[in-house]
Order: sequence, then structure tokens, then C-alpha cells
Amino acid sequence: MLTLYHAPHSRSTRILDLIYAMGIADRVTVRIVSVPRQDGTGRRDPLNPHPEGKVPLLDHDGVMIWESAAIMLYLADLFPAAEYTVPEGDAGRGRFLAWMFWYAGVMEPVIVHGVAGLDHPVLHTTYRGMAEVTDRLRKALEAGPWLMGDRLTAADLLISSPFMWFKDSTPDDPLIRDWVDRIASLPWQATVIELENWHMAAA
Amino acid sequence: MLTLYHAPHSRSTRILDLIYAMGIADRVTVRIVSVPRQDGTGRRDPLNPHPEGKVPLLDHDGVMIWESAAIMLYLADLFPAAEYTVPEGDAGRGRFLAWMFWYAGVMEPVIVHGVAGLDHPVLHTTYRGMAEVTDRLRKALEAGPWLMGDRLTAADLLISSPFMWFKDSTPDDPLIRDWVDRIASLPWQATVIELENWHMAAA
Repeated sequence: MLTLYHAPHSRSTRILDLIYAMGIADRVTVRIVSVPRQDGTGRRDPLNPHPEGKVPLLDHDGVMIWESAAIMLYLADLFPAAEYTVPEGDAGRGRFLAWMFWYAGVMEPVIVHGVAGLDHPVLHTTYRGMAEVTDRLRKALEAGPWLMGDRLTAADLLISSPFMWFKDSTPDDPLIRDWVDRIASLPWQATVIELENWHMAAA
Repeated sequence: MLTLYHAPHSRSTRILDLIYAMGIADRVTVRIVSVPRQDGTGRRDPLNPHPEGKVPLLDHDGVMIWESAAIMLYLADLFPAAEYTVPEGDAGRGRFLAWMFWYAGVMEPVIVHGVAGLDHPVLHTTYRGMAEVTDRLRKALEAGPWLMGDRLTAADLLISSPFMWFKDSTPDDPLIRDWVDRIASLPWQATVIELENWHMAAA
């Protein structure tokens, strides 16, 4: 059994996006939990088994899977028929994994440092900055239309997710803006937005 | 064909560790490139195809795979007989992926922020800190002897790697110190150290 511990309008919304994109909503039980919010509302939820009280957390038959990118890769691989993964054995598998890890290990830190207004030579040496992130995305989308070429994958949903929350943070590049708009217009997005508003009102 | 772009005594040393641990050194061509070092030596190498001049980079039949954790997961999955992965279909696969992504997306940022001496509420909200990293490792090693239980995997090599470079940064916890010592004593470690010294002298 698959159970997703989820807080509406949070980092775990991208997992819901992937679930609806893949058409596997009937395979995953979504359990709404409370989390502390930046605005001071919410609190750590004793019903959330995540050791730091964060979301998302996926429970698959008692095995706990944390970290958004890990959960997205896991679900995409678990239901290969939905075609949001690049399966093992395909030539592009390594590049697909690189995108998923690059988001977690480079792009998200770069965004977080930007939000916090932090700058330091060590950060630049390790992560470079938003200019390099933008370059990477642009180069991939020049081949496009998706990061993995003609295949829309979990990597597009993960990597576009910060720009879904904060549209204004999208790099000012037509290729990247078009890609974000295309993802925002996918047919299941309206369902997730409606569901998230409903979850939020019910919370 | 597999080619690893590598700089000795760098973040890509952990890829060499995995290659020797898995016994696949005859399957991977190691190409030594120069990188800019913290001490001002070295320079960006025009022979390194990484778009930011970083290491490691793995070229598999022309597909470029970047990010240490992605490369380690890819190699571990590519040679399942070496048993450094938890393969798809195994109950622990999701937990294994979570460890790999947690290193890239949480533990390495926490270490980098520590090295840079940075502190900020946004960093704490997003990543927590070294206390939480230590807690996670201790809880997993209480079950031990390895992070995935009785199976030594690529996750142990990746997650222990910062403590291999900077022994003094190892959390002061007997379970974690023992685990780091056990990994440092694995029989192939001497080969990698000798090889790295040879690479360094030849560079």
C-alpha cells in the first residue's frame, strides 16, 4: 500500500502533481498532515511519521521514503507504464538521474540561497548560481521540448516546481518561460489546484 | 564505453572508491582532468566536457551523467552483480533512493553551510542542521551495521565520503565513528589511496 503524507500548498504538492500526471491517484492514499508554515501558522503533526515533521513522506508497505526527488523517481519507476520515467536500460537513464539529483543537490540550494539573500565564495565554488542554472535549462530546452527531449518526465515536473509556486522567479528566458507555461497548462493541473484548495479549506 | 572524468583528491574520489569497491575498474576508463582548487592551483580543463568544468562526469556511450550521487546510483544499478545497489523491485529500494537524495539535497548543503560558517532561518527551515544529520545516521546505524542494514551499498560510500576527506568532521558518536572506520578499512581503500597519490604526482 502506498500512503503519501502531504500538506497542501507545500513542497509535497509536486508529488501530487506527479500522481495526477501519471494517472495513479487511485493507487496512492493521500493523508493530510499539518506542518509549520513560514507565516507562523501550522504546527508539527504527531501523525506525520517523518523524523523532522516534514512533507512529503511516502510509505510503501511500511518502508518510509523521504525527499521529494527520491519519491518522484521511485513512483515514476514503480509505474513505468505511465511513462514519466526513463527506465533502466534506456540510453537516457543516466541523464535522467543526473537531472533529478542536480535539482536536489544544486538547483534547490541555489534557489534557497537566493531566497535567504546569502552569498559566499564557498557557495559559488560548490553550487555556482542562478546564471548557470538558467544556462543548463536553456541548453536542454533548445533541443526540447522537454528536458529529456521529446519525452515529458518526472524531471520536468520536479525542476519546474519552484517556478510553479513563484512564477516571478522563472528565469527571463523565452525557452524556459514557454516550458513552464506548457507544464502549467497540462490538463491535470486544474484538478490538483482544485484539490489543493479543497484540502487547504478543510485543514 | 564508460569514461570517468576525474581529478585526484576531489569530490570525484568517491566515484573511484565505488568503482574499486564494485570491482569494475576494468570496465571504466578514468581520464584525469585538472580543476581549479581551493588553494588557487589547478585550472578549468578544456578537455573536461562538464559544462561548468567540474568533476565527476561520467560518459556512457556519449550520454553525459553529472552529479556524484547520480553517477554512483547509475553505476551501482548498471552492475547489479556487484551488489552495491538495492535493485528495483526490492522492498528497500525506496529507502535506498531516499538516502542517496538526502545526501545530495540535505547532508551536503548542511556541510557546505558549516564550512562557509553560514546560518540563516531559511537554511534551518529547509535543511535543519548537523544535529539532525547526526540523528538520522545514528538511528540507521543502531539497526546497522550499514545504512541499509546488513547490506553495504553505494549509500554508505556516498554518505561517509565527507568524513573520509575530513576525519575530524565526523560526528562525535561511537556508532558513526565505528561505521566510518569500518568503511575506511575496507580492503580496496589502500588501492584507491595509492592510485590517487600516483595520479596527483603525475598531474
